[in-house]
Amino acid sequence: MLTPFLMDDLLRRSLAEDIGTGDITTLSTIPADRQTRAVLIAKEDGVICGLPVFARTYELLDPQVIVRFLVSEGQQIQKGDRLAEIEGSARSVLTGERVALNFLQRLSAIATKTAWAVNQIKGTKASIADTRKTTPGLRVFEKYAVRTGGGSNHRFNLADGILIKDNHIQAAGGITAAVTKARQVAPHTLKIEVEVENLAMVDEALACGADIIMLDNMDKAAIEAAVARIAGRAIVEISGNMGEKDLASLASTGIDLISIGALTHTVKALDISLRFDLA
Amino acid sequence: MLTPFLMDDLLRRSLAEDIGTGDITTLSTIPADRQTRAVLIAKEDGVICGLPVFARTYELLDPQVIVRFLVSEGQQIQKGDRLAEIEGSARSVLTGERVALNFLQRLSAIATKTAWAVNQIKGTKASIADTRKTTPGLRVFEKYAVRTGGGSNHRFNLADGILIKDNHIQAAGGITAAVTKARQVAPHTLKIEVEVENLAMVDEALACGADIIMLDNMDKAAIEAAVARIAGRAIVEISGNMGEKDLASLASTGIDLISIGALTHTVKALDISLRFDLA
Amino acid sequence: MLTPFLMDDLLRRSLAEDIGTGDITTLSTIPADRQTRAVLIAKEDGVICGLPVFARTYELLDPQVIVRFLVSEGQQIQKGDRLAEIEGSARSVLTGERVALNFLQRLSAIATKTAWAVNQIKGTKASIADTRKTTPGLRVFEKYAVRTGGGSNHRFNLADGILIKDNHIQAAGGITAAVTKARQVAPHTLKIEVEVENLAMVDEALACGADIIMLDNMDKAAIEAAVARIAGRAIVEISGNMGEKDLASLASTGIDLISIGALTHTVKALDISLRFDLA
Amino acid sequence: MLTPFLMDDLLRRSLAEDIGTGDITTLSTIPADRQTRAVLIAKEDGVICGLPVFARTYELLDPQVIVRFLVSEGQQIQKGDRLAEIEGSARSVLTGERVALNFLQRLSAIATKTAWAVNQIKGTKASIADTRKTTPGLRVFEKYAVRTGGGSNHRFNLADGILIKDNHIQAAGGITAAVTKARQVAPHTLKIEVEVENLAMVDEALACGADIIMLDNMDKAAIEAAVARIAGRAIVEISGNMGEKDLASLASTGIDLISIGALTHTVKALDISLRFDLA
Amino acid sequence: MLTPFLMDDLLRRSLAEDIGTGDITTLSTIPADRQTRAVLIAKEDGVICGLPVFARTYELLDPQVIVRFLVSEGQQIQKGDRLAEIEGSARSVLTGERVALNFLQRLSAIATKTAWAVNQIKGTKASIADTRKTTPGLRVFEKYAVRTGGGSNHRFNLADGILIKDNHIQAAGGITAAVTKARQVAPHTLKIEVEVENLAMVDEALACGADIIMLDNMDKAAIEAAVARIAGRAIVEISGNMGEKDLASLASTGIDLISIGALTHTVKALDISLRFDLA
Amino acid sequence: MLTPFLMDDLLRRSLAEDIGTGDITTLSTIPADRQTRAVLIAKEDGVICGLPVFARTYELLDPQVIVRFLVSEGQQIQKGDRLAEIEGSARSVLTGERVALNFLQRLSAIATKTAWAVNQIKGTKASIADTRKTTPGLRVFEKYAVRTGGGSNHRFNLADGILIKDNHIQAAGGITAAVTKARQVAPHTLKIEVEVENLAMVDEALACGADIIMLDNMDKAAIEAAVARIAGRAIVEISGNMGEKDLASLASTGIDLISIGALTHTVKALDISLRFDLA
Repeated sequence: MLTPFLMDDLLRRSLAEDIGTGDITTLSTIPADRQTRAVLIAKEDGVICGLPVFARTYELLDPQVIVRFLVSEGQQIQKGDRLAEIEGSARSVLTGERVALNFLQRLSAIATKTAWAVNQIKGTKASIADTRKTTPGLRVFEKYAVRTGGGSNHRFNLADGILIKDNHIQAAGGITAAVTKARQVAPHTLKIEVEVENLAMVDEALACGADIIMLDNMDKAAIEAAVARIAGRAIVEISGNMGEKDLASLASTGIDLISIGALTHTVKALDISLRFDLA
Repeated sequence: MLTPFLMDDLLRRSLAEDIGTGDITTLSTIPADRQTRAVLIAKEDGVICGLPVFARTYELLDPQVIVRFLVSEGQQIQKGDRLAEIEGSARSVLTGERVALNFLQRLSAIATKTAWAVNQIKGTKASIADTRKTTPGLRVFEKYAVRTGGGSNHRFNLADGILIKDNHIQAAGGITAAVTKARQVAPHTLKIEVEVENLAMVDEALACGADIIMLDNMDKAAIEAAVARIAGRAIVEISGNMGEKDLASLASTGIDLISIGALTHTVKALDISLRFDLA
Repeated sequence: MLTPFLMDDLLRRSLAEDIGTGDITTLSTIPADRQTRAVLIAKEDGVICGLPVFARTYELLDPQVIVRFLVSEGQQIQKGDRLAEIEGSARSVLTGERVALNFLQRLSAIATKTAWAVNQIKGTKASIADTRKTTPGLRVFEKYAVRTGGGSNHRFNLADGILIKDNHIQAAGGITAAVTKARQVAPHTLKIEVEVENLAMVDEALACGADIIMLDNMDKAAIEAAVARIAGRAIVEISGNMGEKDLASLASTGIDLISIGALTHTVKALDISLRFDLA
Repeated sequence: MLTPFLMDDLLRRSLAEDIGTGDITTLSTIPADRQTRAVLIAKEDGVICGLPVFARTYELLDPQVIVRFLVSEGQQIQKGDRLAEIEGSARSVLTGERVALNFLQRLSAIATKTAWAVNQIKGTKASIADTRKTTPGLRVFEKYAVRTGGGSNHRFNLADGILIKDNHIQAAGGITAAVTKARQVAPHTLKIEVEVENLAMVDEALACGADIIMLDNMDKAAIEAAVARIAGRAIVEISGNMGEKDLASLASTGIDLISIGALTHTVKALDISLRFDLA
Repeated sequence: MLTPFLMDDLLRRSLAEDIGTGDITTLSTIPADRQTRAVLIAKEDGVICGLPVFARTYELLDPQVIVRFLVSEGQQIQKGDRLAEIEGSARSVLTGERVALNFLQRLSAIATKTAWAVNQIKGTKASIADTRKTTPGLRVFEKYAVRTGGGSNHRFNLADGILIKDNHIQAAGGITAAVTKARQVAPHTLKIEVEVENLAMVDEALACGADIIMLDNMDKAAIEAAVARIAGRAIVEISGNMGEKDLASLASTGIDLISIGALTHTVKALDISLRFDLA
Repeated sequence: MLTPFLMDDLLRRSLAEDIGTGDITTLSTIPADRQTRAVLIAKEDGVICGLPVFARTYELLDPQVIVRFLVSEGQQIQKGDRLAEIEGSARSVLTGERVALNFLQRLSAIATKTAWAVNQIKGTKASIADTRKTTPGLRVFEKYAVRTGGGSNHRFNLADGILIKDNHIQAAGGITAAVTKARQVAPHTLKIEVEVENLAMVDEALACGADIIMLDNMDKAAIEAAVARIAGRAIVEISGNMGEKDLASLASTGIDLISIGALTHTVKALDISLRFDLA
């Protein structure tokens, strides 16, 4: 789902950022006609994500570099797995290495973390969703990684979802007023989500026709009460800095979605490396 | 050191990424003339970094939003601290919130982690340095955060530093050949760094005049032997996936620099939030 | 709702397109220090739209040009009305005139046409909506004009709305399969719209939970039957090349929305002109 | 004459505008490997224009989509004509459809309208020309459509033509002063055009060597008098909001050019549609 | 005539090119709050050109730097003249110095050279014109410098002038055919120029109505014959690698224009320096 | 070393600058299907530089134009040499000619001048280096030309080299303070250069560990004294407006580098032309 059309601008900027006025080490030590083969190796277990980004990075830098993947996007990989073979100009393979890996390691980290969270709540009806707490400039990439890890996406930006929070409610003069105004202005293709803090707010949101109700920082009992009251008339989402070990318990309450900022704002790069064979 | 000139392009892209075709929730629920005040609150301890980015984000979105900082860039902050006051159009304050926070939380995370590492090796002559394992598009920002946390910067890109690794050595036909070629081509303003794996390589690098020698994945004993042999004739850097708990021990060997990719590739966003007062 | 952030890029490009390497006529005949006043006059009746664009165009070209509006955005204006006064460098006022007017005349045309359509269906519960048949590059502007004329917006792009058409249905293997797949992949913040051609399709769309049903090229009787069958369980939209004179009749069937491509793809520029007073 | 070099920037922006963060409907319902064939059908009579733009749009989105045209650029087409066949990935064909059609329908509308006007004045020596009243951002495209319809182009921007109007005349201190100043400053490759309102102004413009004289809002008798007086010593252009039905009569006066803003500012999209065959 | 609108894009790129990831020397050695004054000094005689570019460079880098000019654009300056005073942040003044000077020295060089050529032919009716042999990316700036030095501009690009050369003539099937085709396609606002090599070609160009005739590499006798034959019916331009010392002699033949590529392709930077006073 | 990645942005801008809204002469006189062959001819002796830029310019304009070089980059060429053959669409070959030549002639000029300077100092240990006095926007290209001519590059921008000048010294409070501060902040991969004016400053720079010492405007005797004192402990660079005829004499003092701004700020385009064969 990450087509070249969506990737190219950031990939070009990232290559430019890393190459600057030229890879002086490679240009001075490696002959222009030297070919190389390299292999991409997993140094730890995880869910691989970003293979199309990795390939496209080299394609933009040097279309004659060939990348052959040995695993599939989204696959669970083990430490030691050979993930891909790369062949082409030694200069190009070396010059593109860092950018290609920086993307691959970050996206795999997100997919791996998401897959873990999805696994925690297996057996419930809930899904794991991301937030807008993504790295500036990388949102399309990071939300793709969340989907690759089995999660679902919340809105991509402030235009393709309506999320009425406390400040909007206060400024509009209440939940009902805010929902009504949003419905008048927003495209009819968008659902209206309201963030609530207690059951009274749940009731008002339901009454004025909110499509999604986000329970903000409620405890498990309150969540269960809200789910019972909503009874399928709206999608129920929970958010907040819940301890990650509570996911299974929270998901068992019958909610539809748990959105987790840490999927993208707190990442541990998956360790992957390129091993060259310049002989 | 992050002047508007260096920041604006990414900040504009990040705002565009988040705003899309318009913040439909805010525009529909909040009147155009509504003013607000908000306060920025630390939700955990850390080193604050990115205040100029936070301020500039709002300045680019709406020059009439006023941001007053209550802490200084690079300061150690405590959970509960009030970090800044923001005043202006309620629409603007809400629309810019997520982008401004995404930067601030990430940069503070990096500064906090760096400060921790710097503290680990206090009392030694070594410093903590970053790598090129930064988020694509954010290198200038993330390396600034490393400096803010007390670390030092390794090269910014492939053009402003020479780092001869195993592949360059192999392709050039040995360390001496590689260093000689690099010296011929590169600007004389750049030092030449060679990555070595054993003491024989240390000796050859020294002999051909390498300015910096990076000891790659050597154990402590080998590092000590290398430091003794180099004896101040080159800067000594160590790298690799060292356990973070070993920093003090490694630094005590007399090396000059420890470069750590995880400073930027593995981050835990510092928890900071905006609290609004729309009344 | 058209903030500078959303306008500036296109306005700068448009000015560059019109100015090229410099307004040679103005630069050669008008002294640099000559000031002027001009007045913006309506040459026909309509709904004015684009005043913020008009003002911002001059602000980007020359911040010292002052524009004072004598009417409000979205107001019904009459032939002969004075719409604005412009004061500043004669060179700037002349150089910016064409671009500022090109926007104003086009957006007013769209708002005027939309207002006419909205008026046609007054008294029904239906609203008038736009489509993606907008001028390439101007979508945010043209959809803003539709809202200014009293219409509502359909999705802004292929990412912020789901509209399942015959080809999607066929490829997915039926309406139910298509809706199910879309629900799995799309953010939960988006409603799912299905385009149908007959009552059997209406039934299937309803059964699988489509949020919006678009009746494509159905006659009035079929529309009435569909509305009856849907009975409020989904939003009902009609589209197609309906004769514009039928709007009232179609709206009376109880549908929710009429989407009309011609609001934006077929426009008659509203006649507005600048009259200068260089004395 | 619309080379990729002139088209690509706007086409990429237009695709980005329409695709946003991804065509969620198509990506979720259509398998990645599904191929399709589609045919482009005229739904009304007109002059086809924009075939290279249509083809290039798909080429930029997905170079593997094949477009075969069954008509030639600028050809008169009839309702029901098959205009092109498109083959390739079903996802790509669907995702690019709207942008490709938006250009094709608009450019064909302009070419059709221009051809109509050209036909009106057949048999006279006059030609039909456009103005700068084009859609912001699309000038090169729209002026190309005017040529395709048989019209000729007026200046493309403020730098490649000199058109001295009343304000320039007044500021410069008369026609003679304005023409003299323009001749001093402008490249000698540009003709000097003066807009006049009466015969006295015609005489002065002629006397100071204007290359083109534009008769602004003169009636037919005055035009005939002016043509007689100019007697081939300058190109004669007429402009203004002339009723379109008067074109033949006006052209018969012996003028050289009629410039018509409505060719581009008032368009009725030519109805063209894509019919898919996903089987 | 170099408005910010025309300058800013290149100035921003030039600053980015020179600043890279930050002016490390200045940022490390000069305190952020240090103010400075500097004076701009001529180190040799010449015609000053580029003052608005100099000022705008600083304005884009740091709007608080104040530049006061002590000479006027286009003025003849002497070695030792104080040209401007600059005041503001010492960091900003130092960081912007090189870019601001690179523009100023180059544009002054072009203006100086042009002024010299103009002076050579004083007393004749001829003027000195530039060509398209300008530095890639700087055409608007360099042609401005030519005007500042008293020269006139040839076409700015391939769209705002028609210059039919031997290849066009050959491909079109003769001068008459080429001129006729160009007249059909080009805007009527452009003159048609034909490059000729002998008197027969002059005759044909005249006969088919060429507006400008460029005599290519003819000797003085041939030029005189051509001027006599043309007798004011077309503008006469000469070009080619004429020795610069022949300008007066060539101009005396009665031609209208001498176009000289070396005005812009062969420049000797005017020596100008900034002297700081950081005390 | 000028990869497409480093060239394309400027080449596209340069083509756009020259083509404007279309090459009207070529498009109107040359049929779309006309093919041509052309040959690139040296009109004077020099060092050819920019062949990859010449080829890439055509590749970006029209990938079907074929360029075959008959000489190698950096080769000494003689007047009359055939440098390349170009084949393809006559329109494309003509439209791209000027931009391709403008680059080739400028870069060859720089390489030729550099080669001359390098030759002057043959037999000494010194090398010739460039400065930041390059044409705005062309630095990477012009520094490449210096290398092609046998020179070496000084820093590319303010971020990849530290050069402490008098203002930095004064603001920091002395050479020692300035060097110390720079060492603290700058990446350890960069050498520290100090500009000095007398032997006392040489001593201080040496004492605090400057890696490079630039002798600014010293006479030959002072240079010799400085070289003796430095005795290999730092790289010795000289700069300033030295007469170019003194290069050999200055180089004989034992210095390492002579940096010359005029290599790039004062150029005489190498005369090269394209000869077409449209038959």
